[in-house]
Amino acid sequence: MTKEFSVQTIVTILKRVLPADSGTLALHEPSFEGNEWLYVMECLDSGWVSSAGKYVDRFEQMLREYTGVKHAVAVVNGTAALHICLKLVDVQPGDEVLIPALTFVATANAVHYCGAIPHFIDSSRQTLGLDPVKLEEYLQEIADVRKDGCWNRRTGRRIKAAVPMHTFGHPVDLDALAAVCQRFRLELVEDAAESLGSFYKGKHTGHWGKVSALSFNGNKIVTTGGGGAILTNDEALGRLAKHLTTTAKVPHAWAYYHDMVGYNYRLPNINAALGCAQLEKLPQFIERKRALVEVYRQAFADVESVQVFTEPPFAKSNYWLQTLLLDERCADYRDELLDATNLAGIQTRPAWTLLHRLPMYEECPRMDLEVATMLEKRIVNIPSSQKLTITSIF
Amino acid sequence: MTKEFSVQTIVTILKRVLPADSGTLALHEPSFEGNEWLYVMECLDSGWVSSAGKYVDRFEQMLREYTGVKHAVAVVNGTAALHICLKLVDVQPGDEVLIPALTFVATANAVHYCGAIPHFIDSSRQTLGLDPVKLEEYLQEIADVRKDGCWNRRTGRRIKAAVPMHTFGHPVDLDALAAVCQRFRLELVEDAAESLGSFYKGKHTGHWGKVSALSFNGNKIVTTGGGGAILTNDEALGRLAKHLTTTAKVPHAWAYYHDMVGYNYRLPNINAALGCAQLEKLPQFIERKRALVEVYRQAFADVESVQVFTEPPFAKSNYWLQTLLLDERCADYRDELLDATNLAGIQTRPAWTLLHRLPMYEECPRMDLEVATMLEKRIVNIPSSQKLTITSIF
Repeated sequence: MTKEFSVQTIVTILKRVLPADSGTLALHEPSFEGNEWLYVMECLDSGWVSSAGKYVDRFEQMLREYTGVKHAVAVVNGTAALHICLKLVDVQPGDEVLIPALTFVATANAVHYCGAIPHFIDSSRQTLGLDPVKLEEYLQEIADVRKDGCWNRRTGRRIKAAVPMHTFGHPVDLDALAAVCQRFRLELVEDAAESLGSFYKGKHTGHWGKVSALSFNGNKIVTTGGGGAILTNDEALGRLAKHLTTTAKVPHAWAYYHDMVGYNYRLPNINAALGCAQLEKLPQFIERKRALVEVYRQAFADVESVQVFTEPPFAKSNYWLQTLLLDERCADYRDELLDATNLAGIQTRPAWTLLHRLPMYEECPRMDLEVATMLEKRIVNIPSSQKLTITSIF
Repeated sequence: MTKEFSVQTIVTILKRVLPADSGTLALHEPSFEGNEWLYVMECLDSGWVSSAGKYVDRFEQMLREYTGVKHAVAVVNGTAALHICLKLVDVQPGDEVLIPALTFVATANAVHYCGAIPHFIDSSRQTLGLDPVKLEEYLQEIADVRKDGCWNRRTGRRIKAAVPMHTFGHPVDLDALAAVCQRFRLELVEDAAESLGSFYKGKHTGHWGKVSALSFNGNKIVTTGGGGAILTNDEALGRLAKHLTTTAKVPHAWAYYHDMVGYNYRLPNINAALGCAQLEKLPQFIERKRALVEVYRQAFADVESVQVFTEPPFAKSNYWLQTLLLDERCADYRDELLDATNLAGIQTRPAWTLLHRLPMYEECPRMDLEVATMLEKRIVNIPSSQKLTITSIF
């Protein structure tokens, strides 16, 4: 029997499905069930917790093996990874960079750190990420492709790159987007901060961008405390990524010589140790995430006007954050639902405020953002920790 | 009996004084002897290793209590701390910032990240840091003080701030420097990356700058793996430092709204846990460092043309890195000494390459750098780990 939509119905279902928690049930909590202690202790015992030590190398190797991307450089966080990715594809001050309006603020900040200008693009209902069809139409309207790249006729600025973000772990349509980037001479940089463990047509996200950024923040599927990584299949860019993120110091037994402006973005060894143990568990974490979405799908199957967001057909997603999508006619209840769930001790959150509505980015160029505006009103993320499926649900 | 200077004499003395090591005796190795395990385990057990968790607050409180500075904000590393310090005193693109030529490259990089231009100043033989007397003479020659600040007559640019760095832990003459900054309407920012535990006229370094930067990199007296902190006595700046380093997110139960361009610079909780345990041991670490310099002083007392660098009379230094200062006539042997010691398994290093000789900074303005040039040729840092004084020396 179909249940009518109400905030109370959703709260009741979440309470029934989720394990009772004495405090607040977190939106996303990390799971330490493997060798975390062992590796971190080994790290402390060795004395090498910082820039020296073996875990950074091992973590990078594990990332290469898991993603299949040839080069991985571990850094302090996803924002740092994205900042360096943009440097690696030569984003210059005054360039424009195409990014979704619906993303975490770090995507725009990384563009700003390069002295470049975010240019906001609409999202796809199917993926929640950059819409390649709308992007192509828009570029045909505003852009000139010349020998030296893509130019915005309206602003007179060069458009250097496009940065899709795989929202809540769900891959954008990478083949279609790569084709648009090629036609318009744009560098493709994947913001894969949320998509470690997500595959597009059988290959891990991060393969389509010339360079790509991962994040291992505490709320991610795998955490290093704080951390990130740069992925690339280009050997020269991989070497440059390592150089740029380690203060651009030229290797020498004792001399301190730096040959360019570098960054202190290296991941400490102790955080990498944590990451190694976490990566060992990643396949299990993904299985549980994918089990959790089935639980939610069944629980909400009969409720009118609420859908549990499901991966696009070309993707196998990590389902990092589970998502309820309210029908448009119920979108006005979003805030009430967020208030009621959080008050009931079940942590939920909306999508981010669209970036063109933040004061520091409101003057940035943008296309019509119809779908993103609609999605922002309708998305509610619900508890997604991988440990949920091993507690009271089953 | 006085021993004549030779590279072999110095190597022999170091071998005699230092404990035998099966591999290479490091220049600086961290010591984990206290509650490091306990706190890190507690952190893993709680599940909160990243942005949530109690250790960041506790670490910041311990820093406030130890330094006496009213506000402390923990960040990912010293470079990030310095970057935000410059933002906090409103360094703008196109401004010049006075920094020592003799410092780690991060000081100049932080200026560059703000779009500003490093302007290199000479060092004092007494402190190894910025020389206030030479700085004042130089500013009288090149600077105009106007209502809106200090202007460089030669370049037409505003000179916004001066950033002394307390080299190897030894404080610069802060009273004298603060007076120069006041006369020339310059903001004073202390790069205290190396001077946690160093006091100037009885007060901890970091009190004279409007804001100051600490570092807890793996090679520092206290380590968090990688980490740093911003110190300030100004409450509004302390709040802004926290806001800027945590993506400028406006606090809210569930909404994602950011009101300015922020940075993802927050120290992860697991690194702060390590820092809490380390800070508990800091007084002991300093005692051992100060004992070590006495050992070196005695060992080299009779050797011609070599001095063990000693803190200036107004300072009580942490002696972070122990320093041999070769006489000018022996400076030509510096590289030979560095090669011989490193080959013998005793890690040593010179001071940094003077920053105006790095390719990205060679066009930056600078004063005559006579003393820094002389010091660069004469400085050799020798093994300095706090654990050395509890091994075979005593």
